[in-house]
Amino acid sequence: MELGLVGLGKMGGNMRTRLRNAGHTVIGYDHNPEISDATSLADLVEKLPSPKVVWVMVPAGQITRDVIKELGDLLGEGDLVVDGGNSRWTDDQANAAMLAEKSIGFVDCGVSGGVWGLQNGYALMYGGSADDIAKVQPAFDALKPPANDNGQFGCVHAGKVGAGHFSKMVHNGIEYAIMQSYAEGWELLEKVELVDNVTEVFRSWREGTVIRSWLLDLMVNALDEDPGLSKIRGYAEDSGEGRWTVEAGIDNAVPTPAITAALYARFVSRQDDSPAMKAIAAMRNQFGGHAVTSAGG
Amino acid sequence: MELGLVGLGKMGGNMRTRLRNAGHTVIGYDHNPEISDATSLADLVEKLPSPKVVWVMVPAGQITRDVIKELGDLLGEGDLVVDGGNSRWTDDQANAAMLAEKSIGFVDCGVSGGVWGLQNGYALMYGGSADDIAKVQPAFDALKPPANDNGQFGCVHAGKVGAGHFSKMVHNGIEYAIMQSYAEGWELLEKVELVDNVTEVFRSWREGTVIRSWLLDLMVNALDEDPGLSKIRGYAEDSGEGRWTVEAGIDNAVPTPAITAALYARFVSRQDDSPAMKAIAAMRNQFGGHAVTSAGG
Amino acid sequence: MELGLVGLGKMGGNMRTRLRNAGHTVIGYDHNPEISDATSLADLVEKLPSPKVVWVMVPAGQITRDVIKELGDLLGEGDLVVDGGNSRWTDDQANAAMLAEKSIGFVDCGVSGGVWGLQNGYALMYGGSADDIAKVQPAFDALKPPANDNGQFGCVHAGKVGAGHFSKMVHNGIEYAIMQSYAEGWELLEKVELVDNVTEVFRSWREGTVIRSWLLDLMVNALDEDPGLSKIRGYAEDSGEGRWTVEAGIDNAVPTPAITAALYARFVSRQDDSPAMKAIAAMRNQFGGHAVTSAGG
Amino acid sequence: MELGLVGLGKMGGNMRTRLRNAGHTVIGYDHNPEISDATSLADLVEKLPSPKVVWVMVPAGQITRDVIKELGDLLGEGDLVVDGGNSRWTDDQANAAMLAEKSIGFVDCGVSGGVWGLQNGYALMYGGSADDIAKVQPAFDALKPPANDNGQFGCVHAGKVGAGHFSKMVHNGIEYAIMQSYAEGWELLEKVELVDNVTEVFRSWREGTVIRSWLLDLMVNALDEDPGLSKIRGYAEDSGEGRWTVEAGIDNAVPTPAITAALYARFVSRQDDSPAMKAIAAMRNQFGGHAVTSAGG
Repeated sequence: MELGLVGLGKMGGNMRTRLRNAGHTVIGYDHNPEISDATSLADLVEKLPSPKVVWVMVPAGQITRDVIKELGDLLGEGDLVVDGGNSRWTDDQANAAMLAEKSIGFVDCGVSGGVWGLQNGYALMYGGSADDIAKVQPAFDALKPPANDNGQFGCVHAGKVGAGHFSKMVHNGIEYAIMQSYAEGWELLEKVELVDNVTEVFRSWREGTVIRSWLLDLMVNALDEDPGLSKIRGYAEDSGEGRWTVEAGIDNAVPTPAITAALYARFVSRQDDSPAMKAIAAMRNQFGGHAVTSAGG
Repeated sequence: MELGLVGLGKMGGNMRTRLRNAGHTVIGYDHNPEISDATSLADLVEKLPSPKVVWVMVPAGQITRDVIKELGDLLGEGDLVVDGGNSRWTDDQANAAMLAEKSIGFVDCGVSGGVWGLQNGYALMYGGSADDIAKVQPAFDALKPPANDNGQFGCVHAGKVGAGHFSKMVHNGIEYAIMQSYAEGWELLEKVELVDNVTEVFRSWREGTVIRSWLLDLMVNALDEDPGLSKIRGYAEDSGEGRWTVEAGIDNAVPTPAITAALYARFVSRQDDSPAMKAIAAMRNQFGGHAVTSAGG
Repeated sequence: MELGLVGLGKMGGNMRTRLRNAGHTVIGYDHNPEISDATSLADLVEKLPSPKVVWVMVPAGQITRDVIKELGDLLGEGDLVVDGGNSRWTDDQANAAMLAEKSIGFVDCGVSGGVWGLQNGYALMYGGSADDIAKVQPAFDALKPPANDNGQFGCVHAGKVGAGHFSKMVHNGIEYAIMQSYAEGWELLEKVELVDNVTEVFRSWREGTVIRSWLLDLMVNALDEDPGLSKIRGYAEDSGEGRWTVEAGIDNAVPTPAITAALYARFVSRQDDSPAMKAIAAMRNQFGGHAVTSAGG
Repeated sequence: MELGLVGLGKMGGNMRTRLRNAGHTVIGYDHNPEISDATSLADLVEKLPSPKVVWVMVPAGQITRDVIKELGDLLGEGDLVVDGGNSRWTDDQANAAMLAEKSIGFVDCGVSGGVWGLQNGYALMYGGSADDIAKVQPAFDALKPPANDNGQFGCVHAGKVGAGHFSKMVHNGIEYAIMQSYAEGWELLEKVELVDNVTEVFRSWREGTVIRSWLLDLMVNALDEDPGLSKIRGYAEDSGEGRWTVEAGIDNAVPTPAITAALYARFVSRQDDSPAMKAIAAMRNQFGGHAVTSAGG
């Protein structure tokens, strides 16, 4: 099929390559002219045959909303926009409604795969009508991972518009908590100094244990490259999906204590000095005359 | 090699089979005479050639301590006791010291594998001296999983006595938190009713995603067998290792918020009515005249 | 002063009484005609002298938004609306902007006091312009608690529009966590059975300890009325502010683990059977053959 | 009465003063000869009339155990040891049993009051037999806070040996979580920058609100002395009771999520760089090529 692809960054660039490797024609657009196949969004749209399918792969939030709005002006009846970014699922219905006024279709698609996707395929969770999805299905088939011995995985029509990004959001929330799980275990093993070689213990878990996983494999890779993780700082950004997962939990009275713990640990990792702990220290000092450490100390 | 194996329950029984399949001679003892190869611990010890190696696979705690104490009376210089149960690592040094008085060796070995171990092999984490471990290495080699394309995993000499059970304990703490991670995501997806088929979303995650893992595979199995998990009650025991992991964290000032959240969720699952929430309801009523629900209601 | 008061429920009704006791003229409106002083909002507005001040004390959310919208149609330049309900602070700026189009002022006021406010006074946290606040200051003075030996407390101009409800929201978030703190301690003391009379221990804490507080006093009252809290069920609603506090924390990368723990404990208290724990039980069963409890059991 | 008092530090020294102010004879012993009334423990014991009552007020743990052991050698039938320190309740029964061999009585007494106790009295929670407690009751009466309008509080016979320290431990666990509650609210108010003066909001809460408490008063004091807490670092020690409370919860399957959150926040406050967050950053980097911050950066 022919496909327009907006955003050729770390993810989009690799996806273009994988799609082309599968024999599809991809016209990519990026604000960086050196890697772009089109001079503008309008140029990209003009180059596509009808029905035009444009896959948006730009940073979530205002940038994605702006691109989709501009595409709404450029596309027409029967065309399709796919939002493959990490948009909040609550944006999807607004985008779909705006495009529907011009009879343009909309599919939201959560994409997982990181830097490994080019080689191994991307996991895809998408939402929208069956008709709209049919228009982009060849691209999904090219991007998804190959079937393994147990069957074909990594590709799901999750439900109506929004269901794809919602599923991807929950996926990322789970990812936060699983990463936190290994991280806590690693810190404890390192701290207690009973185990001679923590990396070897982690490596041993890669087979036969109930906690074997791809994240464990990645953790062992990281430990091999930087024993003791001495070169890395304990600082982690969060990309939105973790926050939204917890907020979706709260809105629906679903407790998510492990995911929340993982999110808060990231928040704390970015604080030079915790304001809350200043308050704790101050109260302790008022009550018990506990010595406090001065901010400059 | 020839090996005595005390405890032929769900784990021990399958381990005997796997050891025998590998060509080893196993003399098993169990309080159930129908499955036992010896009439008593003394009988089992008598039947073994020297140096005698006895693997203890009975419930952790007093039972394990009692069996090891009795073996200390029955065995002699150069013999070896392996504790393969889920003992707390703090028991190991006491057991080793007691046995050392008679020059009996001791190895602690955490074993993971569940009902899958017979077929796939057991992950082994062990602690002790190199000399002691050498005496039981053939059994370790028979029990461990086969090498896969990436190498040989599932078997590690973690350090001195106690390091094996400590590693297994942390493994289980991580397991608690990973299970909780998937469980929170599943509850949220089911509750929000945006996704048509939550099982299919989970299934799709088995390839290409960063959260693919064996536990995810097991969760999909469970959802296939009992869609919506309608036949199962939200009730989970804890087996000790989760508690010990959190306590080890506390003793070493290592925060384990995700593992702790998983542990507390299990505690709550076993309460018919939460005493703490009675107190909350009572205070709210005192302050705001909020209606309370009577205990009988 | 003369004041219109919309909503004469548990809170509004008592506030009318306290305002009248202080010599103010209050025209109350409620959908229940038996307690209402006006037949309609329009009637209430008509009966007030200019500049008209109308205090809205109805359930937060759509009802409050609707009442304020209707007041926007009925009031005019120089009049003032006070929202004394538990509205989310994000509603305040929208309401203020809508009213400002007709030069009607707006003050948001968080009110704390529960059933005790009539007698002891209400704590007030308000936001808005100094001019607007001056119009309602006599009512604030009547409602607030009397000065005590340490000074005048219970009344604060927190900042611009929204600052009042935001302060009240954080207040309630703190309240959730403090209630949870006592509740956890109470459950532990009751469970361990080392203490002969837990109520007496709680009572003793009312003086000399660092945890003495009004909530502790209320907890002792509750324990006196219902020893062991045997008549009450461990079930607690949440009223919105706890959720909003946690969400505000997340939006601002401020970790609130204790407040969040309190909120989640309330969520769990309202679940008959935890879906997440069904998933845990299912995974354990798949892995280890752990017996599960059937949903009907 | 006549009383021996071992340990004249911040707490013990003030308690000696308060006891003497009430007319009691106190012979104090401290390793600092400048403030000591006796030259040794033996000298102190010799100076007391029979039945001798010795109150131990030294750091919990080995020091307390050593002092009590030495007193066991010096005292005799009918004498009494009171442990007023922050000992773990599990120590109490061992100490009582050791002393009972020589018919020496034992009372454990949790003491709260901080630097305010000298003036306001100390809250006392004690465990032991009625006969033993009678021997020290005059000292309890002198130390406890005076009755207030609502009655006599701050003094409770909690149960048998250990019940005093257990009650005090839970008290401190609750204290941890209440401090954390205010601290989280304060951080959120400061961060959002909607409120003009956070100190004034906290001050206003001192009357009329459901969260008024002594800790709130202390927090306001601290904010008055150091606006914005700019001079203090977000660093808090923990003194044992918080850990023991959580561990007692775990041992008894009582979830204490808010207290645990408070404890873990203290742990984190003492880490320069979080090992767990290094692991998170490393895994993110392996998966997604997320930039990491180098340890030196």
